[in-house]
Amino acid sequence: MDKATYDRGLQIRKDVLGNEFVDKAIASADDFNRPMQDLTTEYCWGYVWGREALSRKTRSMLNLAMISALNRPHELKMHVKGALVNGVTRDEIREIFMQVAIYCGVPAGVDSFRIAREAFAEVDKEQKV
Amino acid sequence: MDKATYDRGLQIRKDVLGNEFVDKAIASADDFNRPMQDLTTEYCWGYVWGREALSRKTRSMLNLAMISALNRPHELKMHVKGALVNGVTRDEIREIFMQVAIYCGVPAGVDSFRIAREAFAEVDKEQKV
Amino acid sequence: MDKATYDRGLQIRKDVLGNEFVDKAIASADDFNRPMQDLTTEYCWGYVWGREALSRKTRSMLNLAMISALNRPHELKMHVKGALVNGVTRDEIREIFMQVAIYCGVPAGVDSFRIAREAFAEVDKEQKV
Amino acid sequence: MDKATYDRGLQIRKDVLGNEFVDKAIASADDFNRPMQDLTTEYCWGYVWGREALSRKTRSMLNLAMISALNRPHELKMHVKGALVNGVTRDEIREIFMQVAIYCGVPAGVDSFRIAREAFAEVDKEQKV
Amino acid sequence: MDKATYDRGLQIRKDVLGNEFVDKAIASADDFNRPMQDLTTEYCWGYVWGREALSRKTRSMLNLAMISALNRPHELKMHVKGALVNGVTRDEIREIFMQVAIYCGVPAGVDSFRIAREAFAEVDKEQKV
Amino acid sequence: MDKATYDRGLQIRKDVLGNEFVDKAIASADDFNRPMQDLTTEYCWGYVWGREALSRKTRSMLNLAMISALNRPHELKMHVKGALVNGVTRDEIREIFMQVAIYCGVPAGVDSFRIAREAFAEVDKEQKV
Repeated sequence: MDKATYDRGLQIRKDVLGNEFVDKAIASADDFNRPMQDLTTEYCWGYVWGREALSRKTRSMLNLAMISALNRPHELKMHVKGALVNGVTRDEIREIFMQVAIYCGVPAGVDSFRIAREAFAEVDKEQKV
Repeated sequence: MDKATYDRGLQIRKDVLGNEFVDKAIASADDFNRPMQDLTTEYCWGYVWGREALSRKTRSMLNLAMISALNRPHELKMHVKGALVNGVTRDEIREIFMQVAIYCGVPAGVDSFRIAREAFAEVDKEQKV
Repeated sequence: MDKATYDRGLQIRKDVLGNEFVDKAIASADDFNRPMQDLTTEYCWGYVWGREALSRKTRSMLNLAMISALNRPHELKMHVKGALVNGVTRDEIREIFMQVAIYCGVPAGVDSFRIAREAFAEVDKEQKV
Repeated sequence: MDKATYDRGLQIRKDVLGNEFVDKAIASADDFNRPMQDLTTEYCWGYVWGREALSRKTRSMLNLAMISALNRPHELKMHVKGALVNGVTRDEIREIFMQVAIYCGVPAGVDSFRIAREAFAEVDKEQKV
Repeated sequence: MDKATYDRGLQIRKDVLGNEFVDKAIASADDFNRPMQDLTTEYCWGYVWGREALSRKTRSMLNLAMISALNRPHELKMHVKGALVNGVTRDEIREIFMQVAIYCGVPAGVDSFRIAREAFAEVDKEQKV
Repeated sequence: MDKATYDRGLQIRKDVLGNEFVDKAIASADDFNRPMQDLTTEYCWGYVWGREALSRKTRSMLNLAMISALNRPHELKMHVKGALVNGVTRDEIREIFMQVAIYCGVPAGVDSFRIAREAFAEVDKEQKV
């Protein structure tokens, strides 16, 4: 493990997904999934998200497109929320998912729109509290 | 068909992929694939690329990520070239494909890097002529 | 937008998925997903389903095969119900999904059979009311 | 092995793909791939294609849609040729692949059109000889 | 049908997934899905799992990797439980899913870890009863 | 970068893919793809392949199954050769790809068998020299 990369990753992960979410994920880790948590924090969030040649906003946009194509609804919802944090507007998210509909097919587009609406509703509810 | 959408699509398609490429595609169309050419020009390039809420540069970046995930090498090479036209730098393409490697897996990343290098070599050769 | 194509698409969409379902989808649309609703109605249901070279029954059969391969359970369930409306029998649906099991793999086949059984149960329940 | 199923499968496979193609495949089998050849002949061509609830023409159409979605160009080209043998017209193949473009995305549609044109060219050349 | 292959398949299926699970699946089969049950038992469990060149433990490990890549959560959970029966340890399952994260991408890895934890919890609960 | 992990990765990568192959890959790296080479060496070969809970033979077997499912022929051929180095026999490769045919579908199985035969032919040719 490269501690500097891990620490940078942990900070970015918290910035994007929220302190509470990440603290909870780490606290609930056990011997089974801790190595996966570490891998994700160091390589995904530290090594790649930590590179400066693309803004966080751009990385979020790429993720919405890619994770739609990959058909992973849990991760997609989380990254819709992260995208809002990184400054992607709801109008931009609509445009991304219309482009998904063209390139990945209408069912992919429909699924991603439904997940975005669920994510928005959850965010709106949290913000009211 | 909506003629205004088609015409806008044809112009964008030519701007991104080059007049010569598009003229040749249209000239070589026959009764079998002409309806598909029309659908693509109107629906993909006119209706979606023609929307102004995302820049062409951003749309190109999304396509590189999505088409890597979709595993379509012919289309990917064409869109690497289009991305250069739309102002995506080679350094940004590298960053996109490193993010692909993390989210879509290392084999997807390796394939996309190879295709990008082929596209760059073809572009460099054309520009020398 | 080409109004004739949109209107033809809206009619076909209602014929296949039911007036109630489509009216509800349109009524619940907001600024975020209305452009996606329009895109789907015009291009998917109007431009492609509206072409006469394949019967609606055949298009439904193709969709069951494709959407199984694409692994999109929400859309698959909706299209199982639409297929029954378009005259695909339950025996034919079984045959399609056995072919899915061979070409897309046993897990795809098993998932599609489960979704079909859920769709049938919902249809049977609605018809009892 | 169920010999009746195997024999029925071998006959259907030859009917669809041609005696010459199948004889060559079987003759070139070695200890490594013979068990796979047997599995395919019995399970795919005998057990499923041998069921009578769908016509061979319908099965070919389903395969063109599914194998496009699965992104398997070698198999797709072979099944385009088989579809022609089973009475699917070139116009119907165009319609199937336009539906592919909508549901699986434009890159899938473009790839399938290109492969179909290659298959048609090979068939036309063979028929001239 | 080859009765010996079917019977071998039924036995292996019960060994791996449990008598109760398989008896229930067979008892709940109707005319719609019985042919699919038969296909799966004979070809998947009898014809392929019945071959002796790989151990059941190895076959389970391959399935965890493949079904993660195929993105089929229902089947994956079932095969996580089957893998434990076949002697794959929880530590080995962790390693498989970390390799999944590398080759299929982080979202695939995250999803598979979550499903494994659900499967473990269900197994632990059953064993307490 | 964690140098120990990178160095371990470089060694494993050379052990599995051959010194010549890896030296050539590194020598031909340029500013564009060097960061991807580094990521792959450290993260894929060092961090994950370097974990000792699974043997290299088992990791190779998992890769053959996964990369077949992922439909990446270049990477698959390379890993077929690597699997032979890691002690997977040709008979075992056949069994893996028959299991692929059942779980990922017959076209995936057929493609993987073809690629394996190409890999074997190249290995046999090199060994004659």
